[in-house]
Amino acid sequence: MENTLNKSLQVITTVELLKHWQDHRALTRRTIDAFPEKAFFNHTIGGMRPFSEMVMELLAIAAPGLKEIASGITAPFNENIEHGNQKAKILELWDNATEEINTYWSQIKEEQFQQTIKLFGQYEGTVWSSIFYFIDNEIHHRGQGYVYLRSLGIEPPAFYERN
Amino acid sequence: MENTLNKSLQVITTVELLKHWQDHRALTRRTIDAFPEKAFFNHTIGGMRPFSEMVMELLAIAAPGLKEIASGITAPFNENIEHGNQKAKILELWDNATEEINTYWSQIKEEQFQQTIKLFGQYEGTVWSSIFYFIDNEIHHRGQGYVYLRSLGIEPPAFYERN
Repeated sequence: MENTLNKSLQVITTVELLKHWQDHRALTRRTIDAFPEKAFFNHTIGGMRPFSEMVMELLAIAAPGLKEIASGITAPFNENIEHGNQKAKILELWDNATEEINTYWSQIKEEQFQQTIKLFGQYEGTVWSSIFYFIDNEIHHRGQGYVYLRSLGIEPPAFYERN
Repeated sequence: MENTLNKSLQVITTVELLKHWQDHRALTRRTIDAFPEKAFFNHTIGGMRPFSEMVMELLAIAAPGLKEIASGITAPFNENIEHGNQKAKILELWDNATEEINTYWSQIKEEQFQQTIKLFGQYEGTVWSSIFYFIDNEIHHRGQGYVYLRSLGIEPPAFYERN
Protein backbone atom coordinates (compact mmCIF):
# COMPACT_ATOMS: atom_id res chain seq x y z
CA MET A 1 0.00 0.00 0.00
CA GLU A 2 1.35 3.43 -0.85
CA ASN A 3 1.89 5.56 2.22
CA THR A 4 0.34 8.89 1.29
CA LEU A 5 0.48 10.39 4.78
CA ASN A 6 3.15 12.46 6.38
CA LYS A 7 5.06 9.92 8.47
CA SER A 8 6.10 12.49 11.03
CA LEU A 9 2.44 13.10 11.86
CA GLN A 10 1.63 9.43 12.47
CA VAL A 11 1.95 7.62 15.81
CA ILE A 12 2.63 4.53 13.68
CA THR A 13 2.32 4.09 9.93
CA THR A 14 0.59 1.16 8.25
CA VAL A 15 3.96 -0.02 6.93
CA GLU A 16 5.43 0.03 10.43
CA LEU A 17 2.43 -1.79 11.91
CA LEU A 18 2.71 -4.59 9.32
CA LYS A 19 6.44 -4.98 10.05
CA HIS A 20 5.75 -4.93 13.80
CA TRP A 21 3.24 -7.76 13.38
CA GLN A 22 5.39 -9.84 11.01
CA ASP A 23 8.37 -9.47 13.35
CA HIS A 24 6.21 -10.83 16.17
CA ARG A 25 5.07 -13.65 13.87
CA ALA A 26 8.71 -14.52 13.11
CA LEU A 27 9.31 -14.86 16.86
CA THR A 28 6.21 -17.03 17.24
CA ARG A 29 7.49 -19.22 14.41
CA ARG A 30 10.78 -19.72 16.27
CA THR A 31 8.79 -20.54 19.41
CA ILE A 32 6.83 -23.23 17.54
CA ASP A 33 10.09 -24.56 16.14
CA ALA A 34 11.64 -24.80 19.62
CA PHE A 35 9.02 -27.40 20.69
CA PRO A 36 9.81 -31.10 20.44
CA GLU A 37 7.35 -32.67 17.98
CA LYS A 38 5.32 -34.62 20.56
CA ALA A 39 5.25 -31.91 23.24
CA PHE A 40 3.94 -29.39 20.72
CA PHE A 41 0.75 -31.48 20.43
CA ASN A 42 0.56 -33.03 23.91
CA HIS A 43 2.24 -30.92 26.58
CA THR A 44 -0.13 -28.92 28.81
CA ILE A 45 -0.17 -27.19 32.19
CA GLY A 46 -3.19 -26.72 34.47
CA GLY A 47 -5.71 -28.09 31.99
CA MET A 48 -4.80 -25.58 29.27
CA ARG A 49 -4.58 -26.39 25.57
CA PRO A 50 -1.34 -27.72 24.07
CA PHE A 51 0.61 -25.00 22.24
CA SER A 52 -0.37 -26.49 18.85
CA GLU A 53 -4.03 -25.69 19.53
CA MET A 54 -3.21 -22.12 20.49
CA VAL A 55 -1.27 -21.79 17.24
CA MET A 56 -4.23 -23.14 15.26
CA GLU A 57 -6.31 -20.37 16.88
CA LEU A 58 -3.72 -17.78 15.82
CA LEU A 59 -3.81 -19.13 12.27
CA ALA A 60 -7.62 -19.02 12.24
CA ILE A 61 -7.52 -15.35 13.23
CA ALA A 62 -4.63 -13.75 11.34
CA ALA A 63 -4.93 -14.23 7.58
CA PRO A 64 -8.73 -14.93 7.60
CA GLY A 65 -9.37 -11.84 9.77
CA LEU A 66 -7.22 -9.66 7.55
CA LYS A 67 -8.88 -11.10 4.43
CA GLU A 68 -12.23 -10.04 5.86
CA ILE A 69 -10.92 -6.52 6.56
CA ALA A 70 -9.54 -6.26 3.02
CA SER A 71 -12.49 -7.81 1.19
CA GLY A 72 -15.46 -6.96 3.41
CA ILE A 73 -16.62 -10.57 3.04
CA THR A 74 -17.43 -12.35 6.32
CA ALA A 75 -16.39 -15.98 6.73
CA PRO A 76 -17.01 -18.25 9.72
CA PHE A 77 -14.19 -18.74 12.22
CA ASN A 78 -12.39 -22.05 11.61
CA GLU A 79 -9.65 -23.46 13.88
CA ASN A 80 -9.89 -26.99 12.49
CA ILE A 81 -7.54 -27.07 9.53
CA GLU A 82 -6.08 -30.55 8.96
CA HIS A 83 -2.46 -30.86 10.10
CA GLY A 84 -2.10 -34.56 10.95
CA ASN A 85 -0.24 -33.71 14.18
CA GLN A 86 2.81 -32.69 12.16
CA LYS A 87 4.73 -29.63 13.24
CA ALA A 88 6.19 -29.22 9.74
CA LYS A 89 2.64 -28.93 8.36
CA ILE A 90 1.75 -26.20 10.87
CA LEU A 91 4.96 -24.31 10.06
CA GLU A 92 3.94 -24.53 6.39
CA LEU A 93 0.50 -23.09 7.24
CA TRP A 94 2.32 -20.37 9.21
CA ASP A 95 4.51 -19.44 6.24
CA ASN A 96 1.52 -19.39 3.90
CA ALA A 97 -0.26 -17.04 6.32
CA THR A 98 2.81 -14.76 6.31
CA GLU A 99 2.43 -14.30 2.56
CA GLU A 100 -1.36 -13.92 2.73
CA ILE A 101 -1.05 -11.25 5.41
CA ASN A 102 1.32 -9.24 3.21
CA THR A 103 -1.09 -9.56 0.28
CA TYR A 104 -4.26 -8.58 2.15
CA TRP A 105 -2.45 -5.76 3.96
CA SER A 106 -1.61 -4.16 0.61
CA GLN A 107 -5.34 -4.11 -0.18
CA ILE A 108 -6.37 -2.22 2.98
CA LYS A 109 -6.78 1.52 2.59
CA GLU A 110 -5.28 3.81 5.22
CA GLU A 111 -8.63 5.42 6.00
CA GLN A 112 -10.06 1.99 6.93
CA PHE A 113 -8.06 1.73 10.16
CA GLN A 114 -10.46 4.04 12.01
CA GLN A 115 -13.57 2.42 10.52
CA THR A 116 -15.72 -0.10 12.36
CA ILE A 117 -15.97 -3.77 11.37
CA LYS A 118 -17.75 -6.85 12.75
CA LEU A 119 -15.16 -9.62 12.34
CA PHE A 120 -16.24 -13.22 11.79
CA GLY A 121 -19.77 -11.84 12.05
CA GLN A 122 -19.43 -11.25 15.79
CA TYR A 123 -16.50 -9.14 17.04
CA GLU A 124 -17.23 -5.45 16.56
CA GLY A 125 -14.53 -2.77 16.78
CA THR A 126 -12.32 -0.50 14.74
CA VAL A 127 -10.01 -2.06 12.18
CA TRP A 128 -6.95 -0.92 14.15
CA SER A 129 -8.28 -2.42 17.40
CA SER A 130 -9.07 -5.70 15.61
CA ILE A 131 -5.52 -5.94 14.25
CA PHE A 132 -4.08 -4.99 17.66
CA TYR A 133 -6.21 -7.78 19.13
CA PHE A 134 -4.71 -10.27 16.65
CA ILE A 135 -1.19 -9.21 17.70
CA ASP A 136 -1.91 -9.00 21.44
CA ASN A 137 -3.59 -12.41 21.43
CA GLU A 138 -0.54 -13.89 19.70
CA ILE A 139 1.85 -12.34 22.27
CA HIS A 140 -0.40 -13.62 25.08
CA HIS A 141 -0.41 -17.23 23.87
CA ARG A 142 3.25 -17.18 22.87
CA GLY A 143 4.09 -16.09 26.43
CA GLN A 144 2.21 -19.18 27.59
CA GLY A 145 4.21 -21.27 25.12
CA TYR A 146 7.37 -19.90 26.76
CA VAL A 147 6.23 -21.38 30.12
CA TYR A 148 5.52 -24.71 28.42
CA LEU A 149 9.04 -24.69 26.96
CA ARG A 150 10.65 -23.75 30.29
CA SER A 151 8.69 -26.52 32.03
CA LEU A 152 10.17 -28.91 29.45
CA GLY A 153 13.67 -27.62 30.26
CA ILE A 154 13.95 -25.80 26.92
CA GLU A 155 15.12 -22.18 26.62
CA PRO A 156 12.67 -20.13 24.52
CA PRO A 157 13.90 -17.68 21.84
CA ALA A 158 14.81 -14.21 23.15
CA PHE A 159 11.66 -12.07 23.47
CA TYR A 160 13.38 -8.90 22.27
CA GLU A 161 14.75 -10.50 19.08
CA ARG A 162 12.09 -10.14 16.45
CA ASN A 163 13.50 -10.93 13.04
CA MET B 1 -2.52 16.50 24.97
CA GLU B 2 -4.58 18.23 22.34
CA ASN B 3 -5.17 16.03 19.31
CA THR B 4 -4.41 18.33 16.42
CA LEU B 5 -4.39 15.67 13.72
CA ASN B 6 -7.21 14.42 11.57
CA LYS B 7 -8.28 11.23 13.33
CA SER B 8 -9.49 9.60 10.13
CA LEU B 9 -5.94 9.81 8.74
CA GLN B 10 -4.35 8.07 11.74
CA VAL B 11 -3.86 4.30 12.10
CA ILE B 12 -4.20 4.95 15.85
CA THR B 13 -4.30 8.27 17.69
CA THR B 14 -2.25 9.06 20.79
CA VAL B 15 -5.46 9.13 22.84
CA GLU B 16 -6.44 5.66 21.59
CA LEU B 17 -2.96 4.27 22.25
CA LEU B 18 -3.01 5.52 25.86
CA LYS B 19 -6.46 3.97 26.43
CA HIS B 20 -5.32 0.71 24.78
CA TRP B 21 -2.38 0.53 27.19
CA GLN B 22 -4.34 1.51 30.31
CA ASP B 23 -7.01 -1.09 29.44
CA HIS B 24 -4.24 -3.71 29.25
CA ARG B 25 -2.89 -2.44 32.58
CA ALA B 26 -6.34 -2.82 34.15
CA LEU B 27 -6.36 -6.46 33.03
CA THR B 28 -2.86 -6.99 34.44
CA ARG B 29 -4.03 -5.48 37.74
CA ARG B 30 -6.88 -8.03 37.88
CA THR B 31 -4.36 -10.79 37.10
CA ILE B 32 -2.16 -9.68 40.03
CA ASP B 33 -5.25 -9.55 42.23
CA ALA B 34 -6.24 -13.12 41.26
CA PHE B 35 -3.05 -14.54 42.82
CA PRO B 36 -3.10 -15.83 46.39
CA GLU B 37 -0.73 -13.69 48.47
CA LYS B 38 1.97 -16.35 48.94
CA ALA B 39 1.85 -17.76 45.41
CA PHE B 40 2.29 -14.27 43.96
CA PHE B 41 5.75 -14.14 45.54
CA ASN B 42 6.72 -17.85 45.52
CA HIS B 43 5.03 -19.82 42.75
CA THR B 44 7.21 -20.61 39.75
CA ILE B 45 7.35 -23.04 36.82
CA GLY B 46 10.48 -24.31 35.09
CA GLY B 47 12.87 -22.06 36.98
CA MET B 48 11.14 -18.85 35.90
CA ARG B 49 10.61 -15.83 38.16
CA PRO B 50 7.54 -15.62 40.40
CA PHE B 51 4.85 -13.34 38.93
CA SER B 52 5.64 -10.63 41.51
CA GLU B 53 9.13 -10.22 40.03
CA MET B 54 7.73 -9.93 36.50
CA VAL B 55 5.35 -7.25 37.78
CA MET B 56 8.24 -5.35 39.39
CA GLU B 57 9.92 -5.38 35.96
CA LEU B 58 6.74 -3.98 34.37
CA LEU B 59 6.62 -1.23 37.02
CA ALA B 60 10.30 -0.41 36.43
CA ILE B 61 9.59 0.04 32.72
CA ALA B 62 6.20 1.77 32.40
CA ALA B 63 6.12 5.07 34.30
CA PRO B 64 9.93 5.55 34.41
CA GLY B 65 10.20 4.84 30.66
CA LEU B 66 7.40 7.24 29.86
CA LYS B 67 8.88 9.88 32.19
CA GLU B 68 12.11 9.64 30.22
CA ILE B 69 10.23 10.03 26.92
CA ALA B 70 8.36 13.07 28.28
CA SER B 71 11.30 14.75 30.01
CA GLY B 72 14.29 13.65 27.97
CA ILE B 73 16.10 12.88 31.23
CA THR B 74 17.70 9.41 31.42
CA ALA B 75 17.46 7.49 34.69
CA PRO B 76 18.92 4.05 35.48
CA PHE B 77 16.60 1.03 35.29
CA ASN B 78 15.44 -0.01 38.79
CA GLU B 79 13.37 -3.13 39.52
CA ASN B 80 14.13 -3.13 43.24
CA ILE B 81 11.47 -0.94 44.80
CA GLU B 82 10.68 -2.01 48.38
CA HIS B 83 7.37 -3.89 48.66
CA GLY B 84 7.89 -6.09 51.75
CA ASN B 85 6.34 -9.10 49.94
CA GLN B 86 2.90 -7.50 50.24
CA LYS B 87 0.57 -7.75 47.25
CA ALA B 88 -1.38 -4.71 48.50
CA LYS B 89 1.80 -2.63 48.31
CA ILE B 90 2.47 -3.71 44.73
CA LEU B 91 -1.14 -2.92 43.76
CA GLU B 92 -0.60 0.53 45.28
CA LEU B 93 2.57 0.99 43.19
CA TRP B 94 0.52 -0.16 40.17
CA ASP B 95 -2.19 2.44 40.80
CA ASN B 96 0.37 5.18 41.30
CA ALA B 97 1.96 4.22 37.98
CA THR B 98 -1.47 4.45 36.30
CA GLU B 99 -1.69 8.11 37.34
CA GLU B 100 1.92 8.86 36.44
CA ILE B 101 1.46 7.35 32.97
CA ASN B 102 -1.54 9.61 32.33
CA THR B 103 0.45 12.64 33.50
CA TYR B 104 3.60 11.94 31.44
CA TRP B 105 1.51 10.98 28.39
CA SER B 106 -0.08 14.42 28.38
CA GLN B 107 3.43 15.92 28.17
CA ILE B 108 4.47 13.97 25.05
CA LYS B 109 4.07 15.80 21.75
CA GLU B 110 2.51 13.97 18.81
CA GLU B 111 5.54 14.51 16.61
CA GLN B 112 7.73 12.70 19.16
CA PHE B 113 6.29 9.26 18.37
CA GLN B 114 8.40 8.93 15.22
CA GLN B 115 11.54 10.30 16.86
CA THR B 116 14.39 8.13 18.13
CA ILE B 117 15.23 7.71 21.81
CA LYS B 118 17.76 5.67 23.83
CA LEU B 119 15.75 4.51 26.84
CA PHE B 120 17.44 3.89 30.18
CA GLY B 121 20.61 4.87 28.37
CA GLN B 122 20.68 1.62 26.37
CA TYR B 123 17.56 0.67 24.35
CA GLU B 124 17.47 2.62 21.10
CA GLY B 125 14.34 2.88 18.95
CA THR B 126 11.47 5.14 17.99
CA VAL B 127 9.21 6.42 20.74
CA TRP B 128 6.26 4.43 19.33
CA SER B 129 8.29 1.20 19.21
CA SER B 130 9.48 1.76 22.79
CA ILE B 131 5.90 2.20 24.03
CA PHE B 132 4.77 -0.83 22.00
CA TYR B 133 7.57 -2.77 23.66
CA PHE B 134 6.28 -1.74 27.10
CA ILE B 135 2.81 -3.00 26.18
CA ASP B 136 3.97 -6.18 24.40
CA ASN B 137 6.27 -7.11 27.27
CA GLU B 138 3.38 -6.68 29.71
CA ILE B 139 1.10 -8.93 27.61
CA HIS B 140 3.92 -11.50 27.33
CA HIS B 141 4.47 -11.74 31.08
CA ARG B 142 0.78 -11.55 31.94
CA GLY B 143 0.23 -14.54 29.63
CA GLN B 144 2.83 -16.35 31.72
CA GLY B 145 0.97 -15.29 34.87
CA TYR B 146 -2.15 -16.93 33.37
CA VAL B 147 -0.30 -20.28 33.23
CA TYR B 148 0.84 -19.83 36.83
CA LEU B 149 -2.78 -19.20 37.87
CA ARG B 150 -4.08 -22.21 35.89
CA SER B 151 -1.39 -24.42 37.43
CA LEU B 152 -2.71 -23.27 40.85
CA GLY B 153 -6.25 -24.23 39.82
CA ILE B 154 -7.33 -20.56 39.55
CA GLU B 155 -9.23 -19.20 36.53
CA PRO B 156 -7.55 -16.03 35.20
CA PRO B 157 -9.59 -12.95 34.21
CA ALA B 158 -11.01 -13.01 30.65
CA PHE B 159 -8.34 -11.88 28.18
CA TYR B 160 -10.81 -9.96 26.01
CA GLU B 161 -12.24 -7.92 28.92
CA ARG B 162 -10.06 -4.88 29.29
CA ASN B 163 -11.74 -2.37 31.58
